[in-house]
Amino acid sequence: MDHSERLWKDIELIRGNAPLVHNITNYVVMNTSANALLALGASPVMAHALEEVEEMVALAGALVVNIGTLSAPWIEAMAAAAKAARARGIPLVLDPVGAGATRMRTETAQLLMRAAPPTIVRGNASEILALYHAGGTTKGVDSLHSTDDAREAAVALADLYRCVVSVSGETDLVVDGKKTIRIGGGHRLMTRVTGLGCTASALSGAFAAVNPDPLLAAAHAMAVMAIAGELAAKRAAGPGTLQLYFLDALYLLTEEEVKRHLRWEEL
Amino acid sequence: MDHSERLWKDIELIRGNAPLVHNITNYVVMNTSANALLALGASPVMAHALEEVEEMVALAGALVVNIGTLSAPWIEAMAAAAKAARARGIPLVLDPVGAGATRMRTETAQLLMRAAPPTIVRGNASEILALYHAGGTTKGVDSLHSTDDAREAAVALADLYRCVVSVSGETDLVVDGKKTIRIGGGHRLMTRVTGLGCTASALSGAFAAVNPDPLLAAAHAMAVMAIAGELAAKRAAGPGTLQLYFLDALYLLTEEEVKRHLRWEEL
Amino acid sequence: MDHSERLWKDIELIRGNAPLVHNITNYVVMNTSANALLALGASPVMAHALEEVEEMVALAGALVVNIGTLSAPWIEAMAAAAKAARARGIPLVLDPVGAGATRMRTETAQLLMRAAPPTIVRGNASEILALYHAGGTTKGVDSLHSTDDAREAAVALADLYRCVVSVSGETDLVVDGKKTIRIGGGHRLMTRVTGLGCTASALSGAFAAVNPDPLLAAAHAMAVMAIAGELAAKRAAGPGTLQLYFLDALYLLTEEEVKRHLRWEEL
Repeated sequence: MDHSERLWKDIELIRGNAPLVHNITNYVVMNTSANALLALGASPVMAHALEEVEEMVALAGALVVNIGTLSAPWIEAMAAAAKAARARGIPLVLDPVGAGATRMRTETAQLLMRAAPPTIVRGNASEILALYHAGGTTKGVDSLHSTDDAREAAVALADLYRCVVSVSGETDLVVDGKKTIRIGGGHRLMTRVTGLGCTASALSGAFAAVNPDPLLAAAHAMAVMAIAGELAAKRAAGPGTLQLYFLDALYLLTEEEVKRHLRWEEL
Repeated sequence: MDHSERLWKDIELIRGNAPLVHNITNYVVMNTSANALLALGASPVMAHALEEVEEMVALAGALVVNIGTLSAPWIEAMAAAAKAARARGIPLVLDPVGAGATRMRTETAQLLMRAAPPTIVRGNASEILALYHAGGTTKGVDSLHSTDDAREAAVALADLYRCVVSVSGETDLVVDGKKTIRIGGGHRLMTRVTGLGCTASALSGAFAAVNPDPLLAAAHAMAVMAIAGELAAKRAAGPGTLQLYFLDALYLLTEEEVKRHLRWEEL
Repeated sequence: MDHSERLWKDIELIRGNAPLVHNITNYVVMNTSANALLALGASPVMAHALEEVEEMVALAGALVVNIGTLSAPWIEAMAAAAKAARARGIPLVLDPVGAGATRMRTETAQLLMRAAPPTIVRGNASEILALYHAGGTTKGVDSLHSTDDAREAAVALADLYRCVVSVSGETDLVVDGKKTIRIGGGHRLMTRVTGLGCTASALSGAFAAVNPDPLLAAAHAMAVMAIAGELAAKRAAGPGTLQLYFLDALYLLTEEEVKRHLRWEEL
């Protein structure tokens, strides 16, 4: 199978099996993450109470933890859920939103990395750099760095935690200790829609639920984001309509479109 | 008056009176529930602090309690608000999101049913079955059962709590102890948009605020969902655009459309 | 420079500098506020934990505090962040959502006004009246009064707290102790979309981040809302599509459109 055939196979598995993806995510993107998972064919659930997260994660095909709007009780539940996921062999995706912007975010991201090393860490370049050099700087939640700036840090993080690191940007970079995959495509307008990075993390969970190879799962999620974003941008006038056409594109995605639009490069 | 005339009269009452619908609902759907209520003509408010819910519910035409993203302080406020609503004779809608998926959800739904029996319980078949047989199983928040599977449980619940039970699915089922109404229509694509079940609960609140017959109020809400969903699906390419056209359809709904698209059957 | 040239200059500054706007806002509008800020060209961040708000606000060009879905821990963080903003000379926008509807909201709005007098208060007429006469009445979060009803209260509040008061309605009113600016335009359909008032507050933060004159910053935000709303309403069928076209219009806004559609009157 070539790259686009493997990606298409995963999309069909998600559509056929509708894996449950348990999200402990931020308030800003709960609705849009759920909609993107549904559009792709997965079944999203949001649950954040310490009292129920371990029980919920046991039903799930993957857990996605996103620190975009933190508070103390959520951190406790995130750690408990992440540990439960690892203990049960359920893939775990961590999105360290805003790591580097405040101490709380950097420390929480590191605490979660140590408490339960994720299967996939998905962040922008600034966040990945901040996770690596605790002490890097991020302005809010938007990246100040290119993905190439972050490549070394991503590889080192991947080695240290034996995980896959997925760095989103103009070109996406997905690395484990050995291989690097670069995903091109997408569209500039995507940076003007809130939470598409978080959506990438949510979809990484869906792919990890059906593909046991976390490098491929992470890369497939970024590839689907780029393809659906490119297709949506062709119809969209601005960021408002882009959002909706993006969901439509995820839902309508065909094998032909995947083949034609996939930009995949292994380094 | 025939069924569509009665429904149309309620829509006109909502548009004319803009009843305040107080929602204590989950983070995922707060925005979309508020928008659906506004599009229909009601006035939504979201308030969840124990310190203010009793005061807010006293201003409202209906209270909608939805347990989609629970935590302990919210449960306490939900119970207090629900009791205040019942004490003042304000219609109360309960949406037991994910009952059956975790103990916390099943128990919270039951606790709320006992603390203040709702006027209308609106859930999918799995949730209604779980509420009845505490111990049923639900996968996350999507239904594993058809509405017909849940009919017996719905009737028994309606009897036990003297409430109306509204079960959404391909065909919706609305029952009290004696009558059953089946609402057809809608569109498959609606299952790919997050929170349309929660929207149905919110709209049930709006109809209950203007119609003293809870069986009709619940059925009218499901009917409006089905009609607006069907109209929206005609224009939509996928679940992204469906969401928006659904709100447009709610806002633009005409007597003629109601008459033409209503699928109403009393058993 | 005439009014539209000054407004256009601010828009270009926002697009060029992408000021970070820190929002502590309600759950209903987090997504739509972030998207509106991005569409305009600013960089939004949401952070509400007491542990990080002072650090985050120090990175920001403006802080927007919105009390739409309150609870005790949030109030504490809002006060701390607001004080930190004032101490550092960072513009502070307060949106007293639902002031007048419950004691908690009225008192929290007043507490925040006293703890750290905002640069700009942005509310509807009922909220501004309630803030002034603690004890006014509001039904939920929608206004029962016209902006002209609230003019006197707005001027008095502006005097008392030495701030700008921005009252949104069919015609918007922006006052400081001395001047009054009236902004016309907009479209009725905007009242059927949740959170456009909150969006106006968020955009007021973006303009305050680039314009040191708070009266102009507040008026520019209302003007951009009115112009983008009017442009969006021309294409929209209902409130669903309006939302998206509104974001598109913000993103696509040209100097020519600003010139043609600005309705600005100084009294």
